[in-house]
Amino acid sequence: MASLIELLQGIVGAPNVLTAAADMAPSLADWRGRYHGTAQAVVRPATTAELAAVVATCAHAGVPMVPQGGNTGLCGGATPLADGRAVVIGMGRMNRVRALDVDNGTICVEAGCTLASVQGAAAAEDLLFPLSLASEGSCQIGGNLSTNAGGVQVLRYGNMRELVLGLEVVLPDGRIWDGLRGLRKDNTGYDLKHLFVGAEGTLGIITAAVLKLFPLPRARATAWVGVPDPRAAVHLLRLMRDACGERVSAFEIVGRSALELVLAHIPRARAPLARGHDWGVLLELTDPQLDSGLATKLEQALAVAMARGLVLDAVLATSEAQAAELWVLREQISEAQRLEGVSIKHDISVPVSRIPEFLERTKAVLEARYAGVRIVAFGHIGDGNLHYNLSQPLVEANAAFIARTAEINRIVHDEVAALGGSISAEHGLGQLKRDEILRYKSEVELDMMRAVKRALDPLGLMNPGKVLPLRA
Amino acid sequence: MASLIELLQGIVGAPNVLTAAADMAPSLADWRGRYHGTAQAVVRPATTAELAAVVATCAHAGVPMVPQGGNTGLCGGATPLADGRAVVIGMGRMNRVRALDVDNGTICVEAGCTLASVQGAAAAEDLLFPLSLASEGSCQIGGNLSTNAGGVQVLRYGNMRELVLGLEVVLPDGRIWDGLRGLRKDNTGYDLKHLFVGAEGTLGIITAAVLKLFPLPRARATAWVGVPDPRAAVHLLRLMRDACGERVSAFEIVGRSALELVLAHIPRARAPLARGHDWGVLLELTDPQLDSGLATKLEQALAVAMARGLVLDAVLATSEAQAAELWVLREQISEAQRLEGVSIKHDISVPVSRIPEFLERTKAVLEARYAGVRIVAFGHIGDGNLHYNLSQPLVEANAAFIARTAEINRIVHDEVAALGGSISAEHGLGQLKRDEILRYKSEVELDMMRAVKRALDPLGLMNPGKVLPLRA
Repeated sequence: MASLIELLQGIVGAPNVLTAAADMAPSLADWRGRYHGTAQAVVRPATTAELAAVVATCAHAGVPMVPQGGNTGLCGGATPLADGRAVVIGMGRMNRVRALDVDNGTICVEAGCTLASVQGAAAAEDLLFPLSLASEGSCQIGGNLSTNAGGVQVLRYGNMRELVLGLEVVLPDGRIWDGLRGLRKDNTGYDLKHLFVGAEGTLGIITAAVLKLFPLPRARATAWVGVPDPRAAVHLLRLMRDACGERVSAFEIVGRSALELVLAHIPRARAPLARGHDWGVLLELTDPQLDSGLATKLEQALAVAMARGLVLDAVLATSEAQAAELWVLREQISEAQRLEGVSIKHDISVPVSRIPEFLERTKAVLEARYAGVRIVAFGHIGDGNLHYNLSQPLVEANAAFIARTAEINRIVHDEVAALGGSISAEHGLGQLKRDEILRYKSEVELDMMRAVKRALDPLGLMNPGKVLPLRA
Repeated sequence: MASLIELLQGIVGAPNVLTAAADMAPSLADWRGRYHGTAQAVVRPATTAELAAVVATCAHAGVPMVPQGGNTGLCGGATPLADGRAVVIGMGRMNRVRALDVDNGTICVEAGCTLASVQGAAAAEDLLFPLSLASEGSCQIGGNLSTNAGGVQVLRYGNMRELVLGLEVVLPDGRIWDGLRGLRKDNTGYDLKHLFVGAEGTLGIITAAVLKLFPLPRARATAWVGVPDPRAAVHLLRLMRDACGERVSAFEIVGRSALELVLAHIPRARAPLARGHDWGVLLELTDPQLDSGLATKLEQALAVAMARGLVLDAVLATSEAQAAELWVLREQISEAQRLEGVSIKHDISVPVSRIPEFLERTKAVLEARYAGVRIVAFGHIGDGNLHYNLSQPLVEANAAFIARTAEINRIVHDEVAALGGSISAEHGLGQLKRDEILRYKSEVELDMMRAVKRALDPLGLMNPGKVLPLRA
């Protein structure tokens, strides 16, 4: 009888079934090196039909499957477990743009397309695919969908979930669900695609998607604004949206510590304003029309905000180069913090209105317990989503601080929960928060999740141990 | 032992358990009088706790439950079956606005709130809840959610599904799922709320929701445009969005027959343009800023469109009153068609790019088979969604024409399916299209729907016979 490996070779060809340790290594750990697993093989199908045959074969053999895109995730969702039973399914060869429909404003792409390639295909037709992430050169659409990826333009265009109209999925038994509809409206039963978006590959493997495209922004106005406190930032956001509607496409808050880290570690970074402020906001308006008077609108709105005491100082970029300089201050925070040393990170959300309260409460608790702790808070305040990272007090050895990760997570996450928030706003659960979430989700909700998992993956073979704990 | 009725009276009070035929009658038929059912009782809970107790009691007794909002649906989804076993659960007493959070841009409302009352609560805070339907004075939020309601502003703001952030649901066993989160980002497991949106009450009963609010539009520019054909309308849409972005908030197409019906039957309706055209487009831009130069933008864009041959003639409303007159021509089509006599109606969608093809193909087939048939086509072309209604040839008795409904549905729906469309774009399946959909959904998709139904409602007691057929 043929072995599993032979069967898989028969489907995708021997060169696309990796079994040597060196060949598999890049697929067996996450890029940050926090998770390490083992696997029987890494299989790389080229088509939906091949993938369906791979899944049917694994299912028949009772072998767990771990779908993997660009392997850029932050929660260990794409790393196999340590038991070595799984087959990793690498999606990178399924990277065709199947169709682009200008008049429908849609693109149909395979799961292994990189995000950048999809952005590029849209731009070639003068259209925008708005999802944008630091990892866009290597992350793949299947991973973006499976983690419901976010980023800085969610405020205007929504998460990945809002950007998808249809999916093709290989189900855990190897059947293919063709839900590749390009429809804005379809009310013919349960909306199954939303089950797979954000499911981290635990219910099936997304193989292709129909995504929404938008008019390409041609005008842009960017400003860095010093605000007195997060409450002012929240009110400024409302004022800006009231004045400029959907043209507000980014609204990012940056705390003083975050900005100082960037200025200390990133050579090309320059202080945006003459005086330092406790909180800065990077905001951007875009418009499809070139002569849309965006800069004037932005100036007028900021003048109103200044008169109301919501803005202390502001600088408007007068060129694309200057706008790019302002974006460096936001986009290089993670890198600057990496250079500073390992930190304790959180990706949380609360209602936008409760961001100020979250920051005040959590700071008070943390500073009382950990004198000198440095709070590096920044992120998508327009979505209520903060990256809330903690660096050790300057006098303390970092290892001792990092050893307290679990207790610090507990403090931060309990504050988030008390304000009706989420302990994973845009990164997912994976392995990292799979057990932590058990404290915050109701038993009713966990029961429903388990019921859905059992209904679609009764054998429990799809990416086991991610999102939900392994079954006892 | 207490009877079911006594148990229900104990929960909600005797006056809120209706059993007399006259009292129940309004709840046992749909408003168009197409569906008639019977029930043991109509129960009217006032709180989520009462509803949970009602559901637990019915579940324990094995009694089917039919949730009912404003009873304005078009597919019989809220009408009980004829077997008389069910209890109808009227949601109208659960009509509180629980919270409105201006800085978060959210409102938390109970399922029994009318759509108009939610719009009003938002407007009182200078905010917009954008869903808008002809029935908004009586339809309820629970029904809007359960049918994923659409309307004329979907183009800009999305369907009901896109407008909801969190839900509270009583599950089929009477447990309460508190998913009332007001978060823009939450990636902690399967997104369960999307299962209940559009499920027509077959998986549980939505009791409350957190909905998104938007800046109130203060400027508006409205135009009626004669276009040479639907292809020109599709290209005009792209041109308008490219020029004006999200400010394009309505883009409705109206065929000549539809306009003529309105002009014939609605006394206050007046022809919008001096000459008649085969196709008209009603389009509207809105902006939160009063002095946003919308009318100028609209004029400029239409001038470009005219130069490209996409527009034959156009009139811009110069006052709110004139804009309202133009909207009469769109909003009174259904009423005009009702006055003309019963017609055969369809609520279909295809990709926007394929609307012209759909219209050409279907017209050719229908006119070949039914000489003189009058095609009344109109609707949300920006969403690919047409109301495609057929009136009898003027020489034919209407009853004979209506008798052919099934064969005509088959022709229209087959054309829709061939173009990758949906046979129910915004009305749902209910009883009306429950069996028809079996022809168009794949067995894989039906299997997944049944698996979800079994997982969440294993006893099959929630609104049986809607969306999915009764179990054999």
